[in-house]
Amino acid sequence: MTVRFGLLGAGRIGKVHAKAVSGDANAKLVAVADAFPAAAEAISAAYGCEVRTIEAIEAAKDIDAVVICTPTDTHADLIERFSRAGKAVFCEKPVDLDLARVKACIKVVDETKGKLMVGFNRRFDPHFMAVKKAIDEGRIGTVEMVTITSRDPGAPPVDYIKRSGGIFRDMTIHDFDMARFLLGEEPVAVTATAAVLVDKAIGEAGDYDSVSVILQTASGKQAIISNSRRATYGYDQRIEIHGSKGMVSAENQRPFSIEVANGDGYTRPPLHDFFMTRYTEAYANEIASFIAAIEKGAAITPSGKDGLAALKLADAALQSVKEGRLVKVD
Amino acid sequence: MTVRFGLLGAGRIGKVHAKAVSGDANAKLVAVADAFPAAAEAISAAYGCEVRTIEAIEAAKDIDAVVICTPTDTHADLIERFSRAGKAVFCEKPVDLDLARVKACIKVVDETKGKLMVGFNRRFDPHFMAVKKAIDEGRIGTVEMVTITSRDPGAPPVDYIKRSGGIFRDMTIHDFDMARFLLGEEPVAVTATAAVLVDKAIGEAGDYDSVSVILQTASGKQAIISNSRRATYGYDQRIEIHGSKGMVSAENQRPFSIEVANGDGYTRPPLHDFFMTRYTEAYANEIASFIAAIEKGAAITPSGKDGLAALKLADAALQSVKEGRLVKVD
Amino acid sequence: MTVRFGLLGAGRIGKVHAKAVSGDANAKLVAVADAFPAAAEAISAAYGCEVRTIEAIEAAKDIDAVVICTPTDTHADLIERFSRAGKAVFCEKPVDLDLARVKACIKVVDETKGKLMVGFNRRFDPHFMAVKKAIDEGRIGTVEMVTITSRDPGAPPVDYIKRSGGIFRDMTIHDFDMARFLLGEEPVAVTATAAVLVDKAIGEAGDYDSVSVILQTASGKQAIISNSRRATYGYDQRIEIHGSKGMVSAENQRPFSIEVANGDGYTRPPLHDFFMTRYTEAYANEIASFIAAIEKGAAITPSGKDGLAALKLADAALQSVKEGRLVKVD
Amino acid sequence: MTVRFGLLGAGRIGKVHAKAVSGDANAKLVAVADAFPAAAEAISAAYGCEVRTIEAIEAAKDIDAVVICTPTDTHADLIERFSRAGKAVFCEKPVDLDLARVKACIKVVDETKGKLMVGFNRRFDPHFMAVKKAIDEGRIGTVEMVTITSRDPGAPPVDYIKRSGGIFRDMTIHDFDMARFLLGEEPVAVTATAAVLVDKAIGEAGDYDSVSVILQTASGKQAIISNSRRATYGYDQRIEIHGSKGMVSAENQRPFSIEVANGDGYTRPPLHDFFMTRYTEAYANEIASFIAAIEKGAAITPSGKDGLAALKLADAALQSVKEGRLVKVD
Repeated sequence: MTVRFGLLGAGRIGKVHAKAVSGDANAKLVAVADAFPAAAEAISAAYGCEVRTIEAIEAAKDIDAVVICTPTDTHADLIERFSRAGKAVFCEKPVDLDLARVKACIKVVDETKGKLMVGFNRRFDPHFMAVKKAIDEGRIGTVEMVTITSRDPGAPPVDYIKRSGGIFRDMTIHDFDMARFLLGEEPVAVTATAAVLVDKAIGEAGDYDSVSVILQTASGKQAIISNSRRATYGYDQRIEIHGSKGMVSAENQRPFSIEVANGDGYTRPPLHDFFMTRYTEAYANEIASFIAAIEKGAAITPSGKDGLAALKLADAALQSVKEGRLVKVD
Repeated sequence: MTVRFGLLGAGRIGKVHAKAVSGDANAKLVAVADAFPAAAEAISAAYGCEVRTIEAIEAAKDIDAVVICTPTDTHADLIERFSRAGKAVFCEKPVDLDLARVKACIKVVDETKGKLMVGFNRRFDPHFMAVKKAIDEGRIGTVEMVTITSRDPGAPPVDYIKRSGGIFRDMTIHDFDMARFLLGEEPVAVTATAAVLVDKAIGEAGDYDSVSVILQTASGKQAIISNSRRATYGYDQRIEIHGSKGMVSAENQRPFSIEVANGDGYTRPPLHDFFMTRYTEAYANEIASFIAAIEKGAAITPSGKDGLAALKLADAALQSVKEGRLVKVD
Repeated sequence: MTVRFGLLGAGRIGKVHAKAVSGDANAKLVAVADAFPAAAEAISAAYGCEVRTIEAIEAAKDIDAVVICTPTDTHADLIERFSRAGKAVFCEKPVDLDLARVKACIKVVDETKGKLMVGFNRRFDPHFMAVKKAIDEGRIGTVEMVTITSRDPGAPPVDYIKRSGGIFRDMTIHDFDMARFLLGEEPVAVTATAAVLVDKAIGEAGDYDSVSVILQTASGKQAIISNSRRATYGYDQRIEIHGSKGMVSAENQRPFSIEVANGDGYTRPPLHDFFMTRYTEAYANEIASFIAAIEKGAAITPSGKDGLAALKLADAALQSVKEGRLVKVD
Repeated sequence: MTVRFGLLGAGRIGKVHAKAVSGDANAKLVAVADAFPAAAEAISAAYGCEVRTIEAIEAAKDIDAVVICTPTDTHADLIERFSRAGKAVFCEKPVDLDLARVKACIKVVDETKGKLMVGFNRRFDPHFMAVKKAIDEGRIGTVEMVTITSRDPGAPPVDYIKRSGGIFRDMTIHDFDMARFLLGEEPVAVTATAAVLVDKAIGEAGDYDSVSVILQTASGKQAIISNSRRATYGYDQRIEIHGSKGMVSAENQRPFSIEVANGDGYTRPPLHDFFMTRYTEAYANEIASFIAAIEKGAAITPSGKDGLAALKLADAALQSVKEGRLVKVD
């Protein structure tokens, strides 16, 4: 079976998914839609698919699934529309920045027996997958303490910050998902600190740029998250899991693994400086996983409920900072 | 000038300090006292010093300084007695497990213009010193986020746990001191989680074995501490400091730096399995620093006030766990 | 301009190049030829190109360049035929195992003003390219000592060994090319030792499986090569260049960069176990370089003369082993 | 039993051994001799031993063993004198730079049933010992290929070079000993290249500063040695052993294991810059081994015969360079 795709949104991340779909032997990119015709045309030219309207894709008989890469505030509406239209939906995170809206959207997906995958791409990074495999194979015993370090090379423009939902919903949300993925047990309590250390403008926009979070599960397992909007040495993405029998960790990735030694010491190059080069394989793997799940009629993960759970943790972290207390999560 | 020493307590850590004092060109070990005569005799035989009573050392004209390695509950009394006797005092941490008792003790030290050094040996580890030097030289800009991982190879006996004051006052206290040392600004708020994941008996004794802590300073700098009483791979002691211009970190230490590669992968040996082998140089360096400070009449650091500050953070962390909230520290 | 390709040989390495050509925006795979129709059909189906005979490709107007992936003993003939046919030629190494035949072939290429690239893919590995760049930027000063470690995961079948030309011409030849590439000066002398340590059958076939080589240039620069047909830990490919001002090295690559720590130590996974997964990017990069050179009418490197130079070093190494002496290379 | 020592030569390396002997619980430094009274007095003052003449030490009843740290050209004579005087002898390498003289000296040691240890300290480095242990435990199967990288931080003064016997006898000799130690089988053939790349004055003195050597054993095992008199990044001392079942290696050592990351990359400090700081533990361990062998009446290793064997390899390497051929060693 070949899964036939429509792409909604032909921007930066849309191109990444267009390439992944086109390169997958079990999928075909049939159509693309974008508010900017030129963007859609570029994808069309590169991958030989049609340019259509969203409405046409919604109504199309020759399309089985869509990839939603439009602006965040359109995600929930499009998920609902395409679930009702019987298409499998892959949606970039987040479903929405508002918890109630996400819940309503997932209700529609459930009612329509829709298939929804949320783009927590890091679960599909080969190194993090190898970490998960080591845990699942019992190599470190019972998971006890997870440490996630996640720092961006540089802060985004303040305009982006203002629309982002804040650092916990925009950036830490990936780490909340990863923590859930690795802990193997739901966090029930969140405590967090936050500050503006990188860019005052971020603070003036009501957000933070440097945060620390602890999650705790009912059995006492703990996950620590350290986030900064600035890392001069590149895109810093590390995880470490400490268990009853050992520890497993995934190191940072760099484009070139060389080392230069001289009187100043031994120097390796900086890390990847962009999430797209860092997570190239993860993006391809997540689309492949989505396609495989559709083909097999298998459960899709991470699902809308995973998106909801991560958002709840983000909201709880923000509340913890605001109220100076540990916040319980249901 | 040669600094003449009396050693109070000839146990495990007493032997370490006896060796450090004897090996220092500017110091001489004159006498040793211990409740167990055999222990004192062993030190005497090994380093050619006299066995005396504590009273005799207190009254001695030929002794300038003492090293206190007796049980914790005697520390504060001995600090006061020897401060009053005009001896410089090096005391193993902690001064006391009770905040009020520590304050009273430091008051006596101040009134007698005593010299007191508290044994936070990790400040003298060559690798951590190199980290501090890198910060002080401005190589990472302004310190923003400190991450301290500190895990013991195995849990101590429950009898020890019961007398220890609890994990925050016994184990994390080293990390609180290190966080203060590295942040360059006092923490003003503490939030922590804690659980019993290693040994139920520890929980039954009213303590925890796995804790996570966030400290925050007035300007928003944050320090994360991860502690476990168990690490199958050895004595895990890492620090990382993220700053505005870069990051500096100190790796773990192992007795042998070899690597064996075969079909199972590339394997390096476990870490040191004991704090004394891990911190051999730190113990020698701290005594050398104490001796040098006495000789030069210089300020002694870490002082009794550093001991007090770390204990306050430990108490605040415990309170945070108990009350489920961020606790402010004055 | 789009460079239109014919592929000669649809085996293992042919598939790799078919994918690289198809995925390159500036190239198009037009036709494929193979003695086994099924192999050619598979490529045709996967990439939408025609199946043709070699003769048809030779005569085709719609083909600008060919990639030769046929058995070694056909390489020289095909290079000559397609050079005469005015096609640019990319040929897998070696041109031939016989020095005289290689010289004759290159003569034809020169006479026909042909364009010939020889598949020393390692020059295009991103990590080794970064090493070369560091040298070219002067980061290690003048190159003095090159160390190349190159070990295969396991010995090939003896049937392969018998047709291979021997370890120096089959395996070390990549390292000879890399040494020339990195030394920046031609080797003028070779000394080598060789033994059968891995598989007696290799010795019975008249070959070796474990060799050590030193190359020296006129100015005294030296390159050391260590080869084994066996490495239980994977495909071991390292280079290190020591210069007057410093050293630069490229580490091994592994599919997953994780580490598991427990009582046995800290273990990272084995290396890639196959040259095709290790050098995936190198294969794509070399074809891209070939295409770019054709488009720009630029000089092609590594050229047939590079293939010749490496073969001379291989022959000299073998002679050194046989005669127990340093062998001069013209 | 306490082994009572006389120290012959109170220079740089004499001080190292004086400290090692004094710090060993089973040994006592009784006397020191040096042509420069001030040097001997300094040792006497630091360790509380007597200053005596060589003759007095030779005749002394209260001395069981001597450590010879005098100039190289006195070694063989002193070994003979003290062997005849019934003292156990530890002698810094080399016994002599002349093969015939070494043979004659060892003959005297044998005739007098003397005990002679030659100071190949690297065998006692904890990391290299761990490598040897891994081999002996069978972790890498049968040893096949040894790679030794040994580079000095900087070239010694030409005056030293002139008296040194040349790079093979002065510097590579340590690596020849290490290769013998690790191969587990005697090398029977040597081939080498050599050049002057660091300092022309070294060439004018008739020596080389950059050499590459291959050793081969009767069964075909090979050892590669890479030496340079210059390494801007510190004292580069690495070994790697490739075997039938795996590989074991020992990394370089640095005084501080920290890493600083910024826009230029990730930088670890340079290596130790001096053999004495690099091999501090090795020096202490070798003296401890000597003392233990005397106490137990056990065989002493490395012995004079080990010194002889390494010198033969050095001579063969030089001959290989001069004659451009593989040189057989008996």
